[in-house]
Amino acid sequence: MTRLYDDPASFAEDMVEGFVAANPGYVRQVPGGVVRSRRARRGKVAVVTGGGSGHYPAFCGVVGPGFADGAVIGNIFTSPSAEDAYSVGRAADNGAGVVFSFGNYAGDNMNFGLAVERLEREGIRAHNVVVTDDVASAPAEEHAKRRGVVGDFVVFKVASAAAEEGYSFDEVVRVAEHANDRTRSLGVAFDGCTLPGQDHPLFEVPAGRMGLGLGIHGEPGVSERDMPSASELAKILVDGLLAEAPETGGTPRVAAILNGLGATKYEELFVVWRTASRLLAEAGVEVVAPEVGELVTSLDMAGCSLTLTWLDDELERLWQAPVDTPAYRKGTVSQPETDESDVDEELRAPAERVTVVAPAEGQATAAVVVKALHTVADALRDAEDELGRLDAIAGDGDHGRGMTRGSSAAVAAADEAAAQGVGPAAVLLAAGDAWAAKAGGTSGALWGAALRSFGDLLPDHREATGGDLAAGAAAALATVQRLGRAEPGDKTLVDAMVPFVSELRAAIDSGAGGAQAWQQAAEAAAKAAERTAELRPRTGRARPLAERSVGTPDPGATSFALVMGRIGEVLAANTAA
Amino acid sequence: MTRLYDDPASFAEDMVEGFVAANPGYVRQVPGGVVRSRRARRGKVAVVTGGGSGHYPAFCGVVGPGFADGAVIGNIFTSPSAEDAYSVGRAADNGAGVVFSFGNYAGDNMNFGLAVERLEREGIRAHNVVVTDDVASAPAEEHAKRRGVVGDFVVFKVASAAAEEGYSFDEVVRVAEHANDRTRSLGVAFDGCTLPGQDHPLFEVPAGRMGLGLGIHGEPGVSERDMPSASELAKILVDGLLAEAPETGGTPRVAAILNGLGATKYEELFVVWRTASRLLAEAGVEVVAPEVGELVTSLDMAGCSLTLTWLDDELERLWQAPVDTPAYRKGTVSQPETDESDVDEELRAPAERVTVVAPAEGQATAAVVVKALHTVADALRDAEDELGRLDAIAGDGDHGRGMTRGSSAAVAAADEAAAQGVGPAAVLLAAGDAWAAKAGGTSGALWGAALRSFGDLLPDHREATGGDLAAGAAAALATVQRLGRAEPGDKTLVDAMVPFVSELRAAIDSGAGGAQAWQQAAEAAAKAAERTAELRPRTGRARPLAERSVGTPDPGATSFALVMGRIGEVLAANTAA
Repeated sequence: MTRLYDDPASFAEDMVEGFVAANPGYVRQVPGGVVRSRRARRGKVAVVTGGGSGHYPAFCGVVGPGFADGAVIGNIFTSPSAEDAYSVGRAADNGAGVVFSFGNYAGDNMNFGLAVERLEREGIRAHNVVVTDDVASAPAEEHAKRRGVVGDFVVFKVASAAAEEGYSFDEVVRVAEHANDRTRSLGVAFDGCTLPGQDHPLFEVPAGRMGLGLGIHGEPGVSERDMPSASELAKILVDGLLAEAPETGGTPRVAAILNGLGATKYEELFVVWRTASRLLAEAGVEVVAPEVGELVTSLDMAGCSLTLTWLDDELERLWQAPVDTPAYRKGTVSQPETDESDVDEELRAPAERVTVVAPAEGQATAAVVVKALHTVADALRDAEDELGRLDAIAGDGDHGRGMTRGSSAAVAAADEAAAQGVGPAAVLLAAGDAWAAKAGGTSGALWGAALRSFGDLLPDHREATGGDLAAGAAAALATVQRLGRAEPGDKTLVDAMVPFVSELRAAIDSGAGGAQAWQQAAEAAAKAAERTAELRPRTGRARPLAERSVGTPDPGATSFALVMGRIGEVLAANTAA
Repeated sequence: MTRLYDDPASFAEDMVEGFVAANPGYVRQVPGGVVRSRRARRGKVAVVTGGGSGHYPAFCGVVGPGFADGAVIGNIFTSPSAEDAYSVGRAADNGAGVVFSFGNYAGDNMNFGLAVERLEREGIRAHNVVVTDDVASAPAEEHAKRRGVVGDFVVFKVASAAAEEGYSFDEVVRVAEHANDRTRSLGVAFDGCTLPGQDHPLFEVPAGRMGLGLGIHGEPGVSERDMPSASELAKILVDGLLAEAPETGGTPRVAAILNGLGATKYEELFVVWRTASRLLAEAGVEVVAPEVGELVTSLDMAGCSLTLTWLDDELERLWQAPVDTPAYRKGTVSQPETDESDVDEELRAPAERVTVVAPAEGQATAAVVVKALHTVADALRDAEDELGRLDAIAGDGDHGRGMTRGSSAAVAAADEAAAQGVGPAAVLLAAGDAWAAKAGGTSGALWGAALRSFGDLLPDHREATGGDLAAGAAAALATVQRLGRAEPGDKTLVDAMVPFVSELRAAIDSGAGGAQAWQQAAEAAAKAAERTAELRPRTGRARPLAERSVGTPDPGATSFALVMGRIGEVLAANTAA
């Protein structure tokens, strides 16, 4: 279990501070993560890795010459926010664009996706390469749905080496995607890990048993079986990957990583590698520069995985290329050609937001928005423990804290924006950005984006009508579904949001006032949220206990209904006044 | 716990095989351990590290340019045999002598000591530098009695860098001892580790508690207390070491290692380092090139330690020097100047033993010795489980297995030697070497040396008398006490051996025949062995459960009495015949 921490709530921040203190020659801290302390040469494509933390050396441990230009660092096992990814990407850019690469998880896809959009809006080329190497997480014909695990390391390494060699932006993306197509991983777990400050492990594997294909955050695997011997395990892993070997032609050559998850130690890995290396040789597969050790961990989880990347000459050269980073060093790296003094500081300055003062009507609507946000934040703070309790049944228990952090930050940002005289769209833009940045994770990104989408449809120059509210709600729903890829029935906030939006539209269309329609819609959302207790989650991360959640309403749907209810009260009070 | 293994009995061998398979560019296997796959230049002093395994990256992980020339690899947490150390030392020698360095444990001192003697007899200069950095294991005024823990890493690194720079043999020894004088470590443990194939941990720390100063094999610490926060722990470790700062003058500069023992992960270490680095800065101590991570582990033990080495210019340069090894890389290492083709193969060939055929009297005595060894090996095999059970109460439970392995190997070697017609001394020399090589650990080294000492006093040219037996037994006791440094009352085999030797001498002096005197002495040994149940061990390794052992006889004394009893039966049968 994780025993050493000061404040569990700031564990990731404290970790980054200590990491930077230990490695000042390699990295410096920027909002959202770290970048190289000595910038690469101008014109080199920047490669930025990232994801939730708790996986060291992945991913901040591999920032340095020959490897990543920066790493975006989320909370433990939680996607960083879009703001974090944007901030690190911007700081890492050397003037030739940013290739983000990360494992395939809903929250990361969403937040890095938003960061790419924002960087491109500012004229910085950006693209995401999503790693999908875990053969146990989806069938071969649905390769794109697979999770990213230790294959991350190979894809990042290859993309980084290509960028270091001077590949163009498109070529870095091409070779990274090519490496991902050629990479397969299969993992096993013997026991779970415990998050800082928690009493119970995130998941458990019964003593003497092994979960085959169990994900690095405890996601469901393929099967459970008795603990094998080291040789038997080697055979399971090698056979499982060779069965999925891509077509390459000629004698297969592979890069190989036998990775320990934290509590399964080097000595054990070497005993497994003894047989795995023999089996690969017997299968006619040549192993190039294998790595046996801890490259992508999950705190002190017990387990290991094997990753193979089928090489061609280009991939082999990039896999073998020199690297000099805090946690991973290989060969001899030539000294960087430039340093901080060459940096185009203009590229580093955060973009300023333009303030447009709104007419009185817009300011009046903005005032209602601010009031509603205050009420929502107060309600979420009161409900924090209960929401956390609901989330702990099938997740990591941080939903209540995330909603409190997000809504509190949104209130502060909204107050500040409103004080400058802007309209509701600008207030909700500021509030949404702040919510996403501070809450982190999937729900933070969704709430932030939903607020911005909703705000976009509120007018500055006249009072908002019921029709504006219904259109805004529909836009917010579309955004949430686009980013979160959840359908009704998946046991997410979409299950409460869909009936809310249709009831709001129906009530407005049948002549109800905005406040009244909103309240009816909020009631529909509350009932729908309760009904999510009957569902079982279909997708998502860190949900080994999904079955347990049957009988408990979804925390995201519950908090959505709570927020809509409180907004309804504010609208009613405002209409009455 | 350690879950992945094939045969627990061959875990260390299997591990080395996998380690070499993963790192063919760095290391190759030799009997007893590994040496660099590309030999260093001729004339460079060889630095060889070693000890029990289970501590990776220590110590085989740091063989390579800039670091060690070889590593001697014992079984898990068990000293390698003298034969192992000799073999690796001989293979690593570049013609300028071998500096062994290892942590201060009885078994290692003994076995590396014997290896040095043997190398010097063959004209290879050799010396041991014993690391004593663990401040919790003995008071400052008894610095030489302290255990070696993570300070090993610093001392090995500094000695290796000096050798790489071309220091002379004496200068390498000087700077290694200087580094040891300047190095202090303090560690904590939160939970024990489990040896391969065992059901129970080697020791336990109660949940929510922390053992301060607990050794890396579970040796007793200073105290036990409630689990602190990361910041509190940083303060405990920093304060504990600064209180022992050596006199240096000027602004103190230190090399620092915050080391994880296995299950305490990088993220936690960084959180601790955040505060530790601040506290050191506040105390006016400048940290040079800190290492935060796993350098000396104990399988998956939970815990960590802080090591500081107070630097001067020479030590700082050597600490910062480049290294290229499987587990630790730093800076840029220049390519080795020579390779295998330059090796003086003569230096590598094992020394041949000269066979001297004995007269009939000597061959007759040798035949009795061989018969006695067969009887002893059979008896030890029958008693293996019971001896293991006794040993598991306060130790690691391997005494029965070690005695079986050692005596079986001794029988085979004795058979072979006797077939060549040699006398008892030569048979016991071969048997003793084989026993020590195969049994490993402290008791293997003691039994091997005792057999050799005993044999030295048996004549070739006439029948052995009772006086020869008594003199041989006294010589064996002297050897065991010299190597093992145990006194009567320390709960070791010495407690049975001392009464055996005095009873044997007394019986011979009062006119008893050799067989009869031996049987009387064996009875005295058996009684003395039973009385060891009242004792509590005073020294030794892996004895956190020492208190538990009160009420149980010492396994070493028990097996000694058993062996003496069986030899007595063989002597009696031989006399009767």
